[in-house]
Amino acid sequence: MALLVEKTTSGREYKVKDMSQADFGRLEIELAEVEMPGLMACRTEFGPSQPFKGARITGSLHMTIQTAVLIETLTALGAEVRWCSCNIFSTQDHAAAATARDSAAVFAWKGETLQEYWWCTERALDWGPGGGPDLIVDDGGDATLLIHEGVKAEEIFEKTGKLPDPASTDNAEFQIVLSIIRDGLKTDPKRYHKMKSRLVGVSEETTTGVKRLYQMESSGTLLFPAINVNDSVTKSKFDNLYGCRHSLPDGLMRATDVMIAGKVAVVCGYGDVGKGCAAALKQAGSRVIVTEIDPICALQALMEGIPVLTLEDVVAEADIFVTTTGNKDIIMVDHMKKMKNNAIVCNIGHFDNEIDILGLENYPGVKRITIKPQTDRWVFPETNTGIIVLAEGRLMNLGCATGHPSFVMSCSFTNQVIAQLELWTEKASGKYEKKVYVLPKHLDEKVAALHLGKLGAKLTKLSKDQADYISVPVEGPYKPAHYRY
Amino acid sequence: MALLVEKTTSGREYKVKDMSQADFGRLEIELAEVEMPGLMACRTEFGPSQPFKGARITGSLHMTIQTAVLIETLTALGAEVRWCSCNIFSTQDHAAAATARDSAAVFAWKGETLQEYWWCTERALDWGPGGGPDLIVDDGGDATLLIHEGVKAEEIFEKTGKLPDPASTDNAEFQIVLSIIRDGLKTDPKRYHKMKSRLVGVSEETTTGVKRLYQMESSGTLLFPAINVNDSVTKSKFDNLYGCRHSLPDGLMRATDVMIAGKVAVVCGYGDVGKGCAAALKQAGSRVIVTEIDPICALQALMEGIPVLTLEDVVAEADIFVTTTGNKDIIMVDHMKKMKNNAIVCNIGHFDNEIDILGLENYPGVKRITIKPQTDRWVFPETNTGIIVLAEGRLMNLGCATGHPSFVMSCSFTNQVIAQLELWTEKASGKYEKKVYVLPKHLDEKVAALHLGKLGAKLTKLSKDQADYISVPVEGPYKPAHYRY
Amino acid sequence: MALLVEKTTSGREYKVKDMSQADFGRLEIELAEVEMPGLMACRTEFGPSQPFKGARITGSLHMTIQTAVLIETLTALGAEVRWCSCNIFSTQDHAAAATARDSAAVFAWKGETLQEYWWCTERALDWGPGGGPDLIVDDGGDATLLIHEGVKAEEIFEKTGKLPDPASTDNAEFQIVLSIIRDGLKTDPKRYHKMKSRLVGVSEETTTGVKRLYQMESSGTLLFPAINVNDSVTKSKFDNLYGCRHSLPDGLMRATDVMIAGKVAVVCGYGDVGKGCAAALKQAGSRVIVTEIDPICALQALMEGIPVLTLEDVVAEADIFVTTTGNKDIIMVDHMKKMKNNAIVCNIGHFDNEIDILGLENYPGVKRITIKPQTDRWVFPETNTGIIVLAEGRLMNLGCATGHPSFVMSCSFTNQVIAQLELWTEKASGKYEKKVYVLPKHLDEKVAALHLGKLGAKLTKLSKDQADYISVPVEGPYKPAHYRY
Amino acid sequence: MALLVEKTTSGREYKVKDMSQADFGRLEIELAEVEMPGLMACRTEFGPSQPFKGARITGSLHMTIQTAVLIETLTALGAEVRWCSCNIFSTQDHAAAATARDSAAVFAWKGETLQEYWWCTERALDWGPGGGPDLIVDDGGDATLLIHEGVKAEEIFEKTGKLPDPASTDNAEFQIVLSIIRDGLKTDPKRYHKMKSRLVGVSEETTTGVKRLYQMESSGTLLFPAINVNDSVTKSKFDNLYGCRHSLPDGLMRATDVMIAGKVAVVCGYGDVGKGCAAALKQAGSRVIVTEIDPICALQALMEGIPVLTLEDVVAEADIFVTTTGNKDIIMVDHMKKMKNNAIVCNIGHFDNEIDILGLENYPGVKRITIKPQTDRWVFPETNTGIIVLAEGRLMNLGCATGHPSFVMSCSFTNQVIAQLELWTEKASGKYEKKVYVLPKHLDEKVAALHLGKLGAKLTKLSKDQADYISVPVEGPYKPAHYRY
Repeated sequence: MALLVEKTTSGREYKVKDMSQADFGRLEIELAEVEMPGLMACRTEFGPSQPFKGARITGSLHMTIQTAVLIETLTALGAEVRWCSCNIFSTQDHAAAATARDSAAVFAWKGETLQEYWWCTERALDWGPGGGPDLIVDDGGDATLLIHEGVKAEEIFEKTGKLPDPASTDNAEFQIVLSIIRDGLKTDPKRYHKMKSRLVGVSEETTTGVKRLYQMESSGTLLFPAINVNDSVTKSKFDNLYGCRHSLPDGLMRATDVMIAGKVAVVCGYGDVGKGCAAALKQAGSRVIVTEIDPICALQALMEGIPVLTLEDVVAEADIFVTTTGNKDIIMVDHMKKMKNNAIVCNIGHFDNEIDILGLENYPGVKRITIKPQTDRWVFPETNTGIIVLAEGRLMNLGCATGHPSFVMSCSFTNQVIAQLELWTEKASGKYEKKVYVLPKHLDEKVAALHLGKLGAKLTKLSKDQADYISVPVEGPYKPAHYRY
Repeated sequence: MALLVEKTTSGREYKVKDMSQADFGRLEIELAEVEMPGLMACRTEFGPSQPFKGARITGSLHMTIQTAVLIETLTALGAEVRWCSCNIFSTQDHAAAATARDSAAVFAWKGETLQEYWWCTERALDWGPGGGPDLIVDDGGDATLLIHEGVKAEEIFEKTGKLPDPASTDNAEFQIVLSIIRDGLKTDPKRYHKMKSRLVGVSEETTTGVKRLYQMESSGTLLFPAINVNDSVTKSKFDNLYGCRHSLPDGLMRATDVMIAGKVAVVCGYGDVGKGCAAALKQAGSRVIVTEIDPICALQALMEGIPVLTLEDVVAEADIFVTTTGNKDIIMVDHMKKMKNNAIVCNIGHFDNEIDILGLENYPGVKRITIKPQTDRWVFPETNTGIIVLAEGRLMNLGCATGHPSFVMSCSFTNQVIAQLELWTEKASGKYEKKVYVLPKHLDEKVAALHLGKLGAKLTKLSKDQADYISVPVEGPYKPAHYRY
Repeated sequence: MALLVEKTTSGREYKVKDMSQADFGRLEIELAEVEMPGLMACRTEFGPSQPFKGARITGSLHMTIQTAVLIETLTALGAEVRWCSCNIFSTQDHAAAATARDSAAVFAWKGETLQEYWWCTERALDWGPGGGPDLIVDDGGDATLLIHEGVKAEEIFEKTGKLPDPASTDNAEFQIVLSIIRDGLKTDPKRYHKMKSRLVGVSEETTTGVKRLYQMESSGTLLFPAINVNDSVTKSKFDNLYGCRHSLPDGLMRATDVMIAGKVAVVCGYGDVGKGCAAALKQAGSRVIVTEIDPICALQALMEGIPVLTLEDVVAEADIFVTTTGNKDIIMVDHMKKMKNNAIVCNIGHFDNEIDILGLENYPGVKRITIKPQTDRWVFPETNTGIIVLAEGRLMNLGCATGHPSFVMSCSFTNQVIAQLELWTEKASGKYEKKVYVLPKHLDEKVAALHLGKLGAKLTKLSKDQADYISVPVEGPYKPAHYRY
Repeated sequence: MALLVEKTTSGREYKVKDMSQADFGRLEIELAEVEMPGLMACRTEFGPSQPFKGARITGSLHMTIQTAVLIETLTALGAEVRWCSCNIFSTQDHAAAATARDSAAVFAWKGETLQEYWWCTERALDWGPGGGPDLIVDDGGDATLLIHEGVKAEEIFEKTGKLPDPASTDNAEFQIVLSIIRDGLKTDPKRYHKMKSRLVGVSEETTTGVKRLYQMESSGTLLFPAINVNDSVTKSKFDNLYGCRHSLPDGLMRATDVMIAGKVAVVCGYGDVGKGCAAALKQAGSRVIVTEIDPICALQALMEGIPVLTLEDVVAEADIFVTTTGNKDIIMVDHMKKMKNNAIVCNIGHFDNEIDILGLENYPGVKRITIKPQTDRWVFPETNTGIIVLAEGRLMNLGCATGHPSFVMSCSFTNQVIAQLELWTEKASGKYEKKVYVLPKHLDEKVAALHLGKLGAKLTKLSKDQADYISVPVEGPYKPAHYRY
């Protein structure tokens, strides 16, 4: 791979698809700013004091217009930023161009290969001879993963002299990770250790990434403090739920123009993402069926009038299949073979392994017809009927549309900014150990409060007497930690 | 007050409105059993081993048809039971009659005075010379309160010889509590201490009652272990939400026959109860407005298309007002004066102090016209227009209709049964201290699972491989404790 | 049958259940007036000129609180009124009492036998020696039927001397009709001819009644002009749709307290009534299935996400069955046998023959258990499981609840008042022949307009230029006759 | 203007944007065929008999993928076809390319100037020396208008020698129409008369186009028979309603990526189009407000919980404005000045004159910033805030997205095919005079029936006995003409 880093006139590195789209990107960034009151309020509140002065922040997070507003909030607060996307299809090239030109070192384009993807990740982490970043903004945990795997490999190398062996794994993507680490090791056997030493912490915003972090915490292998932004209420109950309620139909419509009304739609998983998807599909007039493993979520679906069945029960009758589980092996090639002609199969969960894309590719005699980018018809030889797979099984809302809309991303990203501020401010205090933390509730409430004005809402104020009656401070937080909203 | 306890032919005590309604009650109990699969499954699973053999259970919980199925599940598992309602209007007299005749010592009728209410509570706690109950099933915490206040008074009496003085408080209801304790003290100065000693624990199912328990825990005054059933997901996210979504319009329609479509409805509070109420009103075609103190709940309302304003903003335009806050002083007489003619004012939160009934009663020149029981028109002298107050400000779904339907109460009550079993089984193990506990997640999931078959749902099973991938056991529990559903 | 007519102190005839409920009825009538702006506006607009001075109006229409406001609008405009219900279960006894005491000659009570029903109908038509009414307000067409059958019988009698023979029909109800006519013939062989001669016309408000009228028109047997009020938009698209959306769940909840959420509900027919029912059930959280004969209505259901299947497909899985077809033989006893235990079966269409009540009653070994009035459990001997039938197959919203709410009935009844005014005002002009007419669109729009203020709506005014552009008068009507809304 | 007609290898004329997109267009046409069961059923039923053999059909209708399936259904039945779009922004260039290459003479591209638009229309009507088409498929009536204006001008010219004078009108578009006619007159003063003579009839599918036809019918100026396809139930209650419910949010999301949830959206007009838009916006979580002139439609909105206000009441608070009225001068520049920064203004009604684009363009000092094609930000000098106007005020669902989805267009277009067949088959019978006709109900029901199988629906069959009971044929039609669905 011979990818070359380019430089702006001011000397900042980048690699994007087409720098001529920067002006278009800037116009859309300006529109997005109006829709992202939480981030803009952070600029107003914290900008003057430049709290991130001196901080290097690396982000691995879908390089969209909304992310550009996040990045420019971080730089407005004094940070230097390097960025890559966390998904090969999710970059909006005009957003990448505008950000690269104006604000940060961006390495991202729509339609990266996996090789290119990890090259970008590594570029975003590489701050030059002085080492790595002070802080990581992570989405899915790939930046965090690379450092942890790097440190692990360096330790083995130090002890045994052995380099990581890409051939040791079947997983094509992990082979690439190991190659990158191996190549790094050859030039600097302490590269990831240096990164680790400098790192103040990471803030992570996905269910999947957070799960990895908790696993590392419980196995004692977490190398730096982490703030779980995903489980802020203003993230998981907003972005996951209302974001997907918006972007699932958006992706379906842009990719296929299919009429949702009248169709049978199967949503695999009824967590926050599944709830948002099911709501959207139901409201658009389809008959939704949910599959679930968890009896509580299943009972919630039933209370909303949604039947809970297994995929096997409905595979031959449904028109649209959406995976939202965060698990793997949900829709297998054997399921896909049984589907109706032109059934639509897509994933809005996390990884592309929710759908058995590998099984599909390897199916004997299968034919792939690309209707347009991210919209493929796969035809089975036995029946000569096909299914339509979106975004190659990756996140369809980002691959086929533009991801979540600005307003809800403002909630998520304001959490990110606040988490980064918290980590940076407390870097010397010892407040955060090598553990996973959630933001305190008053900050979660603050994020919400910053978004009310834009929607014309007026809060009621508790009297002192009322606050005492329910034993909360007049200014909040108003709920116990276990409250579910 | 000269209330006389009556006795069944078998010698069991009771006090109900009309024993001739027992047959009618029995028919409805039989219908309810078909709708309460969780409770019936408990009878099947635990009935044979009679785990409550020897246990005395006192319940203070709306004496409805559904509660009758709960009580008879407890007795089917071997318990002896005494019961009172936790609300002066919520008893269904035919349910009380059938239960009193066939299963338990019931002291409850629809339309108790406050005097009668506390007499009933005291009767339910009084198991004769041998003292009090082993276990309490509580709803709102009145049974727990009486014991705690009793113990407190006895301690003061022992130290100082002073009897509690009803005149020491303005609160009419608390005066009655003090009178009862005072009268008890005269005959047995250790009565509540004896109760306390015997008590194994309480399970409590309301937000309000749980809040009191946590306050006592944190102030170190909780006298026995408590299980917080309210915060089981299968309680708070079902009964509070879906129960109210059902029973709010039911109460409105039975009390007033008013067309909900086209009206402006204000829901004060957007917690689980408020969410259910707002959903019901919106779906019925009204324009809903929410008032909130909590910015997160406010933002949730906005995401559902519901404006968030203050009561002052809308008091003169709305047709229906519902309080769901669990706080006090929400709708004051000054608000009510400004309302449209025949605006409907009701409470489905917890206590009647959400609405300023006292202020209304004391308003100079106000006229009360009782349309029918629990439906009063109050006419203000200045305007000669009136508002319609339901259930005297108490829970309108229980006062004006029949409370939540059986199916959702089966979820709540199965939690109660499991909590009672847990307390009783572990009574000697020291597992439970004088603290507040929630049920472990696998039991919560079990409650849900017991309710799926009735609705024809089929769960998907995780493979071992998938379970490992997301780090959960194949059989669950599937979610971390902080998961919000 | 020895039913005795009673008289008020002022000498007006009546027969109601319990005159002591008149005060209660009056209070609810006063509440309803506030909710019926169209009727109250008629009183304001037309009251002073007393247009019905001298008119005798007979009504055959559910004797509810709302109907009381209709009746008292007619009397406020100068009419004399006699009234019966058009359904044996739909009378609200307190409404009947208040109206009988204060305003009109009422013959109606909840729970009439069929014998009593037709006695009431005949009483309402009998204005004494002077003959019959000038105008009829009809619902379902029973008053119109009696006169048509009476005239037919008198003609046969005149020609052949033959009296009608109840034994000539299997239909139990029609036997009663023939008996009444036969008995009348004996005393006055020209009774119905006299009625016919006096009659200026009828206004009819149901789909079923209107269908009968069009059949009589096309067969040339219609005896007097008729105004089809049902097909006013402000009737069929409001009362049928939004009325049922309100009163179906109301009836289900009052009769059975069943939780609608989570259940499978089958709605037979997807006309206006079916659309309202399906919407209500879906919004309450049930999974709705529709049965239809009409492909257009079927496609509408599908566009709303509702599957269209046959009753046979779903009879064994559903929990709630609602007939709305206006046809007969929809749910037969063979269907009912296959249903789940405690499946609920009810009708909100028109006649009780949508459900095969006769087949059920005659089923060998079937057992009827009356839970409470209008709620019966029928147990089949083979399975010992039962189904729950509401209101004996008659209109469940009127039998088990209180019918449609006041506001929507104000729309329907304002159409009735306007139709009656039209017939009476034009009685001598020859404008109306022995045909069926609908109200002109500007009156339909007027009815709507009278109901907007109560809901705080503000209409936009067309400019002259805009009106010309779309070729309508500035003041309306705004739509062509074929417009479907 | 020097537009050159091009020719395919087979010699068929066309003018499209980019013939290299034909393969992509073909792939999407094949997908659409699966979603358009009504059209495909027409091919199966009528294809073999080639009923359009010898017929020349000119279409003026959005040149989309769905329209391609319509065109190819007409050609599959034997017709020759020439086609233009009826909107300057609605063409999908890949659809135009595939159709031009494979099936018909297409003159259409996305982003025509008005000059180009009318050039295309004239090309589509020009079948060479032999004159014009036999049949017209019209959408909005522009093809019909051109012929009527042409005939009118030729008559004046014949009588007076006067050519039409473009300077005689202020309307920029009508100036172009007059130029084209004038130019045509110079070469052939009987051109439009010849067209008129040959023309068998037109089928028209929009509310606006139909209104024009009825006006011409009533003024006696209609030159040939017309079938009003718009008022088939399977058109107006499906395409207008469910089509817009789908394509409004699609257009909003593609153009602006704005989060709909939480916003205030104003829908001007609550006809079928407005109902679809309001439903979509409400379900997506916005607070919808409707403006209406018609009290009946207003009352319908209220019954769905939607407030009815005037534009003036809400212009400063709303975030999204949608016109659906079919009238003109709905949102004026004075309204736009008062809107919030970045308020979105769009039209999905019919013509771009619903929004005062002219007023906006002429506003002193206004600045237009094109974010991307069809998405313009207009900045007012006084406030330096802007509004976002979609598709220059033209149909935003076609300008910013891809119009209605295939399935619902299959309903509309099957009506078109059936109407064309009816006109052609009856061309010599005299059945159709120079009037406007609607399709008979049994054909309307047939269109619906052809779309049920795809959605898995099963109709119930009437028994003979039931059919007689409700006086309809067993096979339908099932409803009277005035039935509103």
